[in-house]
Amino acid sequence: MEKSYACWLQYDRINDRNLCEDYRKFCQEVAVKGESVILHSALKELKNGLRSMLDIEPIIYKDEAMEASIIMGTYEQLHLQEYGLDSQLFQKINEEGYLIKTIKKKEKETLLLIGKSDKGVLYAVHHLLRLLQLRESLNQLEFIESPKNQIRMLNQWDNIDASVERGYSGQSIFYDHNKITQNHKRIRDYARLLSSVGINAISINNVNVWKVETKLITHEFLADVAKIADIFRAYGIKTFLSINFASPIEIGGLSTADPLDNEVKKWWKNKAGEIFGYIPDFGGFVVKADSEHRPGPFSYGRDHADGANVLAQALKPFGGIVIWRCFVYNCLQDWRDRSTDRARAAYDHFKPLDGQFLDNVILQVKNGPMDFQVREPVSPLFGALEKTNQMMEFQVAQEYTGQQKDLCFLVPLWKEVLEFDTYAHGQGSAIKKIVDGSLYNAKFSGICAVSNIGDDANWTGHTLAQANLYGYGRLIWNPELTSEELAEEWIRVTFGHDSFLIEQIKQMLLDSWSIYENYTAPLGVGWMVNPHHHYGPSIDGYEYSVWGTYHFADRDGIGVDRTLETGTGYAGQYFSPNKEMYNALESCPDELLLFFHHVPYTHRLKSGKTVIQHIYDTHFKGVAQVEGLIEKWSQLQGKIDEERFTNVSNRLQLQLKNAKEWRDQVNTYFYRKSGIADEENRAIY
Amino acid sequence: MEKSYACWLQYDRINDRNLCEDYRKFCQEVAVKGESVILHSALKELKNGLRSMLDIEPIIYKDEAMEASIIMGTYEQLHLQEYGLDSQLFQKINEEGYLIKTIKKKEKETLLLIGKSDKGVLYAVHHLLRLLQLRESLNQLEFIESPKNQIRMLNQWDNIDASVERGYSGQSIFYDHNKITQNHKRIRDYARLLSSVGINAISINNVNVWKVETKLITHEFLADVAKIADIFRAYGIKTFLSINFASPIEIGGLSTADPLDNEVKKWWKNKAGEIFGYIPDFGGFVVKADSEHRPGPFSYGRDHADGANVLAQALKPFGGIVIWRCFVYNCLQDWRDRSTDRARAAYDHFKPLDGQFLDNVILQVKNGPMDFQVREPVSPLFGALEKTNQMMEFQVAQEYTGQQKDLCFLVPLWKEVLEFDTYAHGQGSAIKKIVDGSLYNAKFSGICAVSNIGDDANWTGHTLAQANLYGYGRLIWNPELTSEELAEEWIRVTFGHDSFLIEQIKQMLLDSWSIYENYTAPLGVGWMVNPHHHYGPSIDGYEYSVWGTYHFADRDGIGVDRTLETGTGYAGQYFSPNKEMYNALESCPDELLLFFHHVPYTHRLKSGKTVIQHIYDTHFKGVAQVEGLIEKWSQLQGKIDEERFTNVSNRLQLQLKNAKEWRDQVNTYFYRKSGIADEENRAIY
Repeated sequence: MEKSYACWLQYDRINDRNLCEDYRKFCQEVAVKGESVILHSALKELKNGLRSMLDIEPIIYKDEAMEASIIMGTYEQLHLQEYGLDSQLFQKINEEGYLIKTIKKKEKETLLLIGKSDKGVLYAVHHLLRLLQLRESLNQLEFIESPKNQIRMLNQWDNIDASVERGYSGQSIFYDHNKITQNHKRIRDYARLLSSVGINAISINNVNVWKVETKLITHEFLADVAKIADIFRAYGIKTFLSINFASPIEIGGLSTADPLDNEVKKWWKNKAGEIFGYIPDFGGFVVKADSEHRPGPFSYGRDHADGANVLAQALKPFGGIVIWRCFVYNCLQDWRDRSTDRARAAYDHFKPLDGQFLDNVILQVKNGPMDFQVREPVSPLFGALEKTNQMMEFQVAQEYTGQQKDLCFLVPLWKEVLEFDTYAHGQGSAIKKIVDGSLYNAKFSGICAVSNIGDDANWTGHTLAQANLYGYGRLIWNPELTSEELAEEWIRVTFGHDSFLIEQIKQMLLDSWSIYENYTAPLGVGWMVNPHHHYGPSIDGYEYSVWGTYHFADRDGIGVDRTLETGTGYAGQYFSPNKEMYNALESCPDELLLFFHHVPYTHRLKSGKTVIQHIYDTHFKGVAQVEGLIEKWSQLQGKIDEERFTNVSNRLQLQLKNAKEWRDQVNTYFYRKSGIADEENRAIY
Repeated sequence: MEKSYACWLQYDRINDRNLCEDYRKFCQEVAVKGESVILHSALKELKNGLRSMLDIEPIIYKDEAMEASIIMGTYEQLHLQEYGLDSQLFQKINEEGYLIKTIKKKEKETLLLIGKSDKGVLYAVHHLLRLLQLRESLNQLEFIESPKNQIRMLNQWDNIDASVERGYSGQSIFYDHNKITQNHKRIRDYARLLSSVGINAISINNVNVWKVETKLITHEFLADVAKIADIFRAYGIKTFLSINFASPIEIGGLSTADPLDNEVKKWWKNKAGEIFGYIPDFGGFVVKADSEHRPGPFSYGRDHADGANVLAQALKPFGGIVIWRCFVYNCLQDWRDRSTDRARAAYDHFKPLDGQFLDNVILQVKNGPMDFQVREPVSPLFGALEKTNQMMEFQVAQEYTGQQKDLCFLVPLWKEVLEFDTYAHGQGSAIKKIVDGSLYNAKFSGICAVSNIGDDANWTGHTLAQANLYGYGRLIWNPELTSEELAEEWIRVTFGHDSFLIEQIKQMLLDSWSIYENYTAPLGVGWMVNPHHHYGPSIDGYEYSVWGTYHFADRDGIGVDRTLETGTGYAGQYFSPNKEMYNALESCPDELLLFFHHVPYTHRLKSGKTVIQHIYDTHFKGVAQVEGLIEKWSQLQGKIDEERFTNVSNRLQLQLKNAKEWRDQVNTYFYRKSGIADEENRAIY
């Protein structure tokens, strides 16, 4: 139980005597300069880690004691020159960055943990503890670290009845029977986990804001929200709330929520004042408006800029921001209508509004134009908005990627997205430069993601899904880290240092996205899942629906024509040369072929295979690969505690069942439709 | 509101002065011989009907007063010879039958309503009131009526939380917040409606007996059940309960529900005693066992006869019966497995047990082998059980036939089933002779059906769905009545006597089943509905499921091969010549073709059309027909009260939307699969 629960903060006792000695010499006395709740957390984390790993209780000095072996504090509070440091150094470090450096001071090894701010100190402590967990030498350290992204956020899709939308790990840790929980332990532990990987913002309720949740911004709930904010603040995390755009009506007693109405403006202004009265550093609002039947400015003939700006104006005096989601599309589409294309929607809605949003509004854009499918192109909105703050939305929760029953390590997917070159300003305009704000010099920017945790003992249902939360935090801190590095790092801090174990699990993680893709919807076409809950195959499940999610398979071929010439023109939303690459059948990458083109089953992929044979082959392969995962994991018996071992073993069995169902349904569906036999004559029904 | 609620008991004031005079002369004085709760109801109904239709309050004599113009009583209590009647006459009339006869007595017209029992008197009163509603002359009446079926039952699928499984008319009228309601008015009115069409039995809770409902047979609920039974008893209706086979464990504290265990036997015996203590004429148990995950004898290695008999033994001393459902099949089927056939299941399970059930067990068999589809063959179990009581299960609730949003008058379907000749004992072995007990001289037999009512103001959601409840009761009283007769009768008593109105609505009702069939699943293949809720199309919705419900459509053809030679052999469960008729492609009727055969889309039907063109044509036609229904109904504006007119208008619009969705999805699905163009080149997507 404890090991499951601890996730990557295992802090196992270090048994290597030499190493231990080496570490201990740095850790006998700690001097902390300054006083803040965050520094308090930093020190607590440090003491806890050292106690646990090294069995020592350092002497703590509450000032810049020269004899201390660890010196912690912000750069402004310390006498930098006494450590041979130039304060210029900190010009290169951003607000949350830090320096870690080993120096010799009066013949004594001394470790400096110096933050630009107190948050920097906290992150430096986590960094140091991770180095210990990784058994790295502390001699001659020199890290100058700044997080690459400004806002590093998680969105909880938690409802106040404790259900979690797209939650696969039990109930909410935040709510209980239509109240905010008074049991804060789990929230505090969550804050520790998040801060250890650099998360600095969280919205604590579902973007779909229902009746009771609408009242979270009222007197009835704000005192309890403030208690949650206190917990997160101590770990450097700002608290946000998702709000209901119709709040002025639903809780304000007004007859309208028209963003241009003066009463509405005043109401939001007062509301902001009230919230900041409870939570002085409140982050702001996350807003899902005019999306999937949620209220929004369209009801009043206003646009999204009007909608976002009324909130932004209200929050501005207090330093709050508005995170406005771009997941806006026609969710009552007629499947007969092939001209409407959901993939186009975000761009079509928001591109014309570029420049009309106030500077404390950020548009939150899902990584792909559809909805967190296993394979989608990058949303063409990234780069298209030059004068508008924007941030990336990922999904750590595995809604369409196995729901934490199936293994799917998502870091490689996110990496691919971040590395994608939009050519928005010529070559070198990678997504990562847009979301870190550098390409257009955005005032606010960053990355957020839907969380994957709940009140399951191990937080994430599938123990290996912890890697997604860890990898997400670490990656968005520094997108230059590779999937391999992050996988290995997570395995070491979670399961220890057995090299066979590391190799096995690393391979499992790194292969898993591709495996999942193999046995599910082929070649970027997406969907084909059971409606509503989204687990398991239903090839036509979304084919005749209102959701704009079609594959158009007939007896001859499959795929969505999104070309400029004969299709929906979606490909034209990209900058050249991406536009041309996707638009032309010859250059469109195999893995996105059916997202952009409708082709015959006999079309030859760049791989040399026909589409239909590719479907058969990948689906048979995917199941075989899951069997391989099971084999790999089974070899780790005895190297992992029983609880975590069994948890993963059981999930892998579920995954195998799911993969077989996908394989057989997909293959059968396409065999029945195409009539083309598998070249290898394998079982198709 | 009142007219919706009154259903067919409108009892409108009769405005025809001459007719009124004629009627009144019979209705000035009523003599009632005898005393019972049922006679009390009969008199109350009579007085109510006369007051309402004729505005008279007859003088009531509580004995055989000679001056009375109406004489009511049972044949044993009256002095038959005084009316020129021979008591031999009543030998031909069964327990619930009656005589209605006009005689001249001392120059005075006198109307005799003489029952074999008090229930007969009640039915005679309803018959008389119906004659008045139909404006029939009362002169020279002579009806000698006996219900053809012994048990004429409704099954309520009501849950104690007030939800109704497959209910399309609001919440339950029986339950409220996990209690039996104390508001009996609606139940009493339901009893009136049912007795007026001859229903004599009702089970008041869902055949799926959940946790709380399991306790209906305990002290906690029985006093309230008894109150319900009191209400129904007064209208000649026996009350039954659905029970949970695992009751000995769940409420009895035993460790087993093994039907051969002595403790279990004893427990059921005591339980029966307890129930009959509360309700001396309790009907008995309805049991869904080993079906769709409900507990049953299989858990203990026992068969259905063991399971039913333990209950039958317990009920026998008190005169109770066990109604044991044959809806037993593998609901965790692998869709890859084409050898298992759900259609075979009831026969395969129960035929071998013929003769092993106690004589107070009745097997309840759904009309078709699958589940109330718009078109199925008749269950081959009918006629196959020679030494076992059996009864028919119909579904008045329109689960798969439009859910009371779409119009579907089901009497023609039920007629077809009842008239079907099984050839079980040679030609002339129609289903109706099996379920009325005559073919095998069964001790108990009859017909039951899932009710379609709820707490909607008009009982059935769709006003015209009232016709199904009415038609069901009247038809099973006398299966010789035609659909046309029943439709017209219902229209007259419900909407009055405008001849244009009668013709329009009659045509609507009589066409509606065929219309519904036209735009939904073709040629008897069934299913193709949205999973779970069963409304609207999803062609592959059940194709890769565990439910045994497949159409096996591929690019070349469609249908389930149930032949003896190459299929599942299901056709062999019928007696000759039905067996051969279904088994041979040449003789299998078009409308069941795909139920029995897998054929190419180009197969020519007896109609001369190919299967694919038939699909296109019927689906275009079905929608056009719904437009015709709308047109027909719209012409009735002003001839019907606003509320009922609007209710039906609105439903017809929903039906049109649904029909278009079916048309387009079915046509598109098969066009995409077959690649064969519509001969008329109509819009397919």
